[in-house]
Amino acid sequence: MKKSIAIDMDNVIVDIETNWINWYEKEFGVRIPKEDLLGVPEDDAFPNPAAARSLIYKTGFFRHAPMIEGAAEAVRKLQENYDIFIVSAAMEFPNSLIEKHDWLNEHLPFISWKNIVFCGDKRVIDTDYLIDDHLKNLDFCKGMPILFTASHNINVTKHTRVNSWEEVLAMLTGELAN
Amino acid sequence: MKKSIAIDMDNVIVDIETNWINWYEKEFGVRIPKEDLLGVPEDDAFPNPAAARSLIYKTGFFRHAPMIEGAAEAVRKLQENYDIFIVSAAMEFPNSLIEKHDWLNEHLPFISWKNIVFCGDKRVIDTDYLIDDHLKNLDFCKGMPILFTASHNINVTKHTRVNSWEEVLAMLTGELAN
Repeated sequence: MKKSIAIDMDNVIVDIETNWINWYEKEFGVRIPKEDLLGVPEDDAFPNPAAARSLIYKTGFFRHAPMIEGAAEAVRKLQENYDIFIVSAAMEFPNSLIEKHDWLNEHLPFISWKNIVFCGDKRVIDTDYLIDDHLKNLDFCKGMPILFTASHNINVTKHTRVNSWEEVLAMLTGELAN
Repeated sequence: MKKSIAIDMDNVIVDIETNWINWYEKEFGVRIPKEDLLGVPEDDAFPNPAAARSLIYKTGFFRHAPMIEGAAEAVRKLQENYDIFIVSAAMEFPNSLIEKHDWLNEHLPFISWKNIVFCGDKRVIDTDYLIDDHLKNLDFCKGMPILFTASHNINVTKHTRVNSWEEVLAMLTGELAN
């Protein structure tokens, strides 16, 4: 039986940081450098955190976000040897449900609807691995937690860290060889 | 730590049978008696199964479905002693995502977004119990499967069966006493 991997969306396959910076500039005319996001919660990096947060609720925010480099190719490659589940805490932002669904259909059309999970608390998910950028998910997962680097988590010292999809592939292909 | 229960929506807390009969009558002018649904897949019970199936994709089909008798009160009661997760295979019908979310907010407002899961294959869900009407979910669940009676499953002889929310409460209150 194949081992299973749960893969988060935002900051793992979806480049929500760049998306947020782009939307903030478009809406409020100020472009912050990506470095400002380092080591802080994302909305706190913007001149007006409440305004930044309000963008999450706007129609289209999730639908047209760019992809993290190499994500689609890597997920497709992993699918050859693992059961892949895309697991997003989309329930916090109900407007994101259909947008995230449509995003996946466009960018990862090889992921069946059977392998998509939109939830809240990920503790209820049982897979052999979880690739995620948040400790609130990784700390409680039932399988092996893998921390995907995002600006906000650069100072985290827990869990095995991967900095790119290249590193995910190297690690999980290595796992198969063991 | 509280034990956890995953609860399906359609045919468990949502009376999708009555809803389907009502919509078929409204759209096609023919009202089938509920008895016609006994022991057959739901769409097969209608004079035109393809037409019946097409209703699932219509806007509003899931949003205004009635509730199964006693569901809200029973779920609220169970919440006192169990971690409750509403787990629906909503991903098969993307139009249902926001409608099911809004339905839950209206009828079960005491369920946090953290405890709602919209998925495809429920095998990835790990709870102590699963209350569901379909073998495709119950046969592979990690916890104890509980078959909630629906017209289509009356001939199923596997798993512990409950016929109503009253029976669910009696059973799971009994479990706590053990």
